Amino acid sequence: MTDPAPIAAVILAAGKGTRMKSAMHKVLHPIAGRPMLLHLLASVEALQPARTVIVVGAGRDQVEAAVGDRAAVVVQEPQLGTGHAVAQAEGALAGFDGTVLILYGDVPLVETATMARMIGALTHDVAAVVLGFRPADPGAYGRIVAEGGIIAKMVEYKDATDAERAVTLCNSGLMAVRSRDLWPLLARVGNANAAGEYYLPDIVGLADRPSAVIETGATEVTGVNSRAELAGLEAAWQAARRTAMMDAGVTLVAPGTVWFAHDTVVAADVTIEPNVVFGPGVSVARGTTIRAHSHVAGATIGEDCDVGPFARLRPGTILGTGAKIGNFVETKNARLGDGAKANHLSYLGDADIGAKANIGAGTITCNYDGFLKYRTTIGAGAFVGSNSALVAPVSIGAGAIVGAGTTLTEDVEADALALARAPQTRKSGWATRFRTAMAARKRG
Amino acid sequence: MTDPAPIAAVILAAGKGTRMKSAMHKVLHPIAGRPMLLHLLASVEALQPARTVIVVGAGRDQVEAAVGDRAAVVVQEPQLGTGHAVAQAEGALAGFDGTVLILYGDVPLVETATMARMIGALTHDVAAVVLGFRPADPGAYGRIVAEGGIIAKMVEYKDATDAERAVTLCNSGLMAVRSRDLWPLLARVGNANAAGEYYLPDIVGLADRPSAVIETGATEVTGVNSRAELAGLEAAWQAARRTAMMDAGVTLVAPGTVWFAHDTVVAADVTIEPNVVFGPGVSVARGTTIRAHSHVAGATIGEDCDVGPFARLRPGTILGTGAKIGNFVETKNARLGDGAKANHLSYLGDADIGAKANIGAGTITCNYDGFLKYRTTIGAGAFVGSNSALVAPVSIGAGAIVGAGTTLTEDVEADALALARAPQTRKSGWATRFRTAMAARKRG
Amino acid sequence: MTDPAPIAAVILAAGKGTRMKSAMHKVLHPIAGRPMLLHLLASVEALQPARTVIVVGAGRDQVEAAVGDRAAVVVQEPQLGTGHAVAQAEGALAGFDGTVLILYGDVPLVETATMARMIGALTHDVAAVVLGFRPADPGAYGRIVAEGGIIAKMVEYKDATDAERAVTLCNSGLMAVRSRDLWPLLARVGNANAAGEYYLPDIVGLADRPSAVIETGATEVTGVNSRAELAGLEAAWQAARRTAMMDAGVTLVAPGTVWFAHDTVVAADVTIEPNVVFGPGVSVARGTTIRAHSHVAGATIGEDCDVGPFARLRPGTILGTGAKIGNFVETKNARLGDGAKANHLSYLGDADIGAKANIGAGTITCNYDGFLKYRTTIGAGAFVGSNSALVAPVSIGAGAIVGAGTTLTEDVEADALALARAPQTRKSGWATRFRTAMAARKRG
Repeated sequence: MTDPAPIAAVILAAGKGTRMKSAMHKVLHPIAGRPMLLHLLASVEALQPARTVIVVGAGRDQVEAAVGDRAAVVVQEPQLGTGHAVAQAEGALAGFDGTVLILYGDVPLVETATMARMIGALTHDVAAVVLGFRPADPGAYGRIVAEGGIIAKMVEYKDATDAERAVTLCNSGLMAVRSRDLWPLLARVGNANAAGEYYLPDIVGLADRPSAVIETGATEVTGVNSRAELAGLEAAWQAARRTAMMDAGVTLVAPGTVWFAHDTVVAADVTIEPNVVFGPGVSVARGTTIRAHSHVAGATIGEDCDVGPFARLRPGTILGTGAKIGNFVETKNARLGDGAKANHLSYLGDADIGAKANIGAGTITCNYDGFLKYRTTIGAGAFVGSNSALVAPVSIGAGAIVGAGTTLTEDVEADALALARAPQTRKSGWATRFRTAMAARKRG
Repeated sequence: MTDPAPIAAVILAAGKGTRMKSAMHKVLHPIAGRPMLLHLLASVEALQPARTVIVVGAGRDQVEAAVGDRAAVVVQEPQLGTGHAVAQAEGALAGFDGTVLILYGDVPLVETATMARMIGALTHDVAAVVLGFRPADPGAYGRIVAEGGIIAKMVEYKDATDAERAVTLCNSGLMAVRSRDLWPLLARVGNANAAGEYYLPDIVGLADRPSAVIETGATEVTGVNSRAELAGLEAAWQAARRTAMMDAGVTLVAPGTVWFAHDTVVAADVTIEPNVVFGPGVSVARGTTIRAHSHVAGATIGEDCDVGPFARLRPGTILGTGAKIGNFVETKNARLGDGAKANHLSYLGDADIGAKANIGAGTITCNYDGFLKYRTTIGAGAFVGSNSALVAPVSIGAGAIVGAGTTLTEDVEADALALARAPQTRKSGWATRFRTAMAARKRG
Repeated sequence: MTDPAPIAAVILAAGKGTRMKSAMHKVLHPIAGRPMLLHLLASVEALQPARTVIVVGAGRDQVEAAVGDRAAVVVQEPQLGTGHAVAQAEGALAGFDGTVLILYGDVPLVETATMARMIGALTHDVAAVVLGFRPADPGAYGRIVAEGGIIAKMVEYKDATDAERAVTLCNSGLMAVRSRDLWPLLARVGNANAAGEYYLPDIVGLADRPSAVIETGATEVTGVNSRAELAGLEAAWQAARRTAMMDAGVTLVAPGTVWFAHDTVVAADVTIEPNVVFGPGVSVARGTTIRAHSHVAGATIGEDCDVGPFARLRPGTILGTGAKIGNFVETKNARLGDGAKANHLSYLGDADIGAKANIGAGTITCNYDGFLKYRTTIGAGAFVGSNSALVAPVSIGAGAIVGAGTTLTEDVEADALALARAPQTRKSGWATRFRTAMAARKRG
């Protein structure tokens, strides 16, 4: 940042979002597992703003719950246009003297670098900087008539002449303005238009100096007004992330079937098979394979691990080098040491599992009694036989063996065998008699 | 319906379907989980036809089994063209006096509204109404030369002049004709053409009055001749349904990965994650999330439920408000009360589970003895410990607890604890001796 | 093959593959579950070459391990261009007199028929045959100026005139040359160019006879330089295979979601639902359905089977006619007889299961003791109750019944009932007291 002026962000989020048909505020709908508003907030925060103000209509509580103390939330009521919306932030920015960046909560993927370019372009010669873009179909967007980056006129589509409509540079609505210019200009914006609204872009015409326009790509300033548009922006985000992953050396067998979260970190020479879904909080180290039909969230996966197919790693999972999680296995708050294996049909919750331990098929950690959660500890090299239930809190020593089918309620010392097994009984010919009786019953 | 005349439908389904390479009749191949023929039949039945006749070649038994008493099935043998095919229905329509709608079993997605438009256009001035469409590539379709909706000429592509081939309005084959006109006209259709067939469109030229054409979109009249075309029509159906779902307020994180059945009902503010497949008979109420990699059929899902990932709900599943079905859990003929939970690795078949009951990981209802199915009843607030087998018929009272690892064969009274557990034994050092012996054996 | 001359193949694989960012040699990255190099090798081997030589830079050991004795591997060091690379194969082809086919390890999908066409075009009148193609965007590919299939000039893009750049026929790099011509021509190739490299195409200009060009489609000669291009070629391969499957009578409900391996064999009238992934070594017989979310590798699946959803069949699985594998079931080295069923939540490893046997939900074969694997044998018509652990080696006779919840350690005779079950105990009111105590503890 060459401009030493402090920065404040005003994020407009007062739109009703009617087309979403949702009880959730529009800007809280997620992309890549993170609410739209928080994507934008993260990009803003990289600029270290002095203050951030979010202007909402309905849904203040929801928005405040989502942003916590990262921003002030103010209410615009009634909603009289974008100029009026920005004006609602004046109180929250009392005493602030610097550059105000005006953003939109439903335009969530604007990058920090673009915001920085806008701020950088706010030289002393210009009153404001507007972010323009050139969509494939300019449609009814407001047009920006400019030459050499200086705006001659901003015009709403419905008010534009044919010549102005032929202009392909459109107004994204994003703007950077000095606070000392912004508030006086907003006070002069009128509402003598068909909608009776106070329009933010009018400040460009009211200023005593010209304003500048800088351009960015259309995807970056795509807004969301419906669930279909939300899905479209999700798809665009995912496509870009998949390409970036492949460029960084990640093998995606079927890129279009892998869904990343906003913060997924994957090393080179990791292979991700088809139909893998990532929730937030995952990192995957070099050499690991995530097999098809897996679901991974909140997991730190070491090098050369083998995960899936049909694995479900939940938050708090930590896999050591070469660990293996197989099909129909769920882990949660579970740490597996190097080379530990749980290959089949298991639930490992609140567990510490030592290096090279082998967890048999159908093993269940009974970590919950309806009130509290308890931990299971399994030592290095231990072998837990199939279909065992480990009633936590319980610990199995290093090198110990638990016999198949055991419901384990007491700790097992290292290198011991533990068993809980009823004696096997048999009744010769019983099955024949049963079948005869049942066949008769079904006939009768 | 403003036309008070009764309606009969004739559905042609005598094509050999050779390119399908299937032992199943072509019109029985499904789209969105329902045979093509039954899509069409459902749309016809919304018009309350007096009679419906399906004309088949081979496969009469299959088609009769599929339609039951919803339509008469007649056989065309040999197959001498579309005009000849329609004529086979005359016997089944003996005594019927009204409008005959001629449809095609392999053109399954024609909408009721379009059929009604055809019938409505059959005024006294016209002999027949033909449904036309304008495909992206008219190719070898028969052309309709018309002006002001009145047909001047219908011409097969191979017989068309260059000027006629330049016409973009094509013949879908669908037609509405009064029965009193249809049978005499069909009797006059000849087969003096290269194929020696009796062509239905010839009745337009033979009638004493002109015929009318109305238009519809190309997708609606797309026909299916191969499995690739079947997949193409399935994709078109799914794309339209996904868009309709999102417009109605359903969040589809990855719309292209969600597959609906023909009758799936989803409320607003439901979230459906990637890779969810719906079979027939599902409704989902507001606020519920269906997580990734789930498979849901025949299930009534209440409000604010949490389903999946990796859930498999089968027919007869009913989930109360706030119920939770987690990963690797299968339900079938199972009713879960409000707030009941089965989070991991369970099979719940033929079960009634009370409100707020907690079903531990690895719980199996043993509902089948090889001959009959039996029910399991679990009371409100009961807690079933992990890895339990519940041998039905069995009942667990409200508030009761079943200890982990129990094979339950007797009923449990309310608020009691039930346990069936072998005592745990241990052999110190056994694992060390076992490893030494096995290592020697592997070396040997 | 009308040309009786013996054939040798030289496969160039010395590129650094820097953009792959991989520790694995580029040509070993797989498409459809098989390394690129082995796709090419299989196509070459159909021509029964006398010798095959692979020229590598780094990664010799990896490549040798992959190809075994199917080809000689020689090292080009330093790497001085394609002409220099081919020259490295001269020693390995000492004494060979016939046609040399020059291929590229990262152009893996060239078909045997195309190679045969190249060889067939190598008449006595021509010095070499070059494989040309016409990409959608010729970009910076080298151009081939030719008339009537005879090459006038081959020119690198950067050296081409505007007229030459307007030529759309491009050089794939693949070539067929007689060995007696190849080695002397290569010896005359110089490196007086900007890169200081020895270019293979230069032999066309140096020969005393003209060379010929034959054409093929652009997809067939697509090369792979990055993971994105690898994914692109995988997608193209899958799309072609899906279409071929549908044309052969396989129903793919959602073709774009099914991923085949290179050797998957599927009969007509098989239905494959969405999101099915095939590993190598699978065949599926007529009438079978593979339901959604399944993962199948190394499995021979009989007629009229019902597999999935959520089935995981691993290598060594053999399913008899009408067998059924349901959700969350894993099989490995398991043979199921006709009509056998394992419908829910089971692991069947190293098992022989007789006809019409019924494997209850949650059944686990305990086939591994940490050192060795053991087999489980289940007779025809046997019924294994739910949640059983079968501790191998163990056998269950025909018609026998194993009670639910049994950990089975001893063989069961035919038609007998086997049980291992602890007696059920109950403590009235215990749950109420427990809840009171726990609630107090949580408050405290």
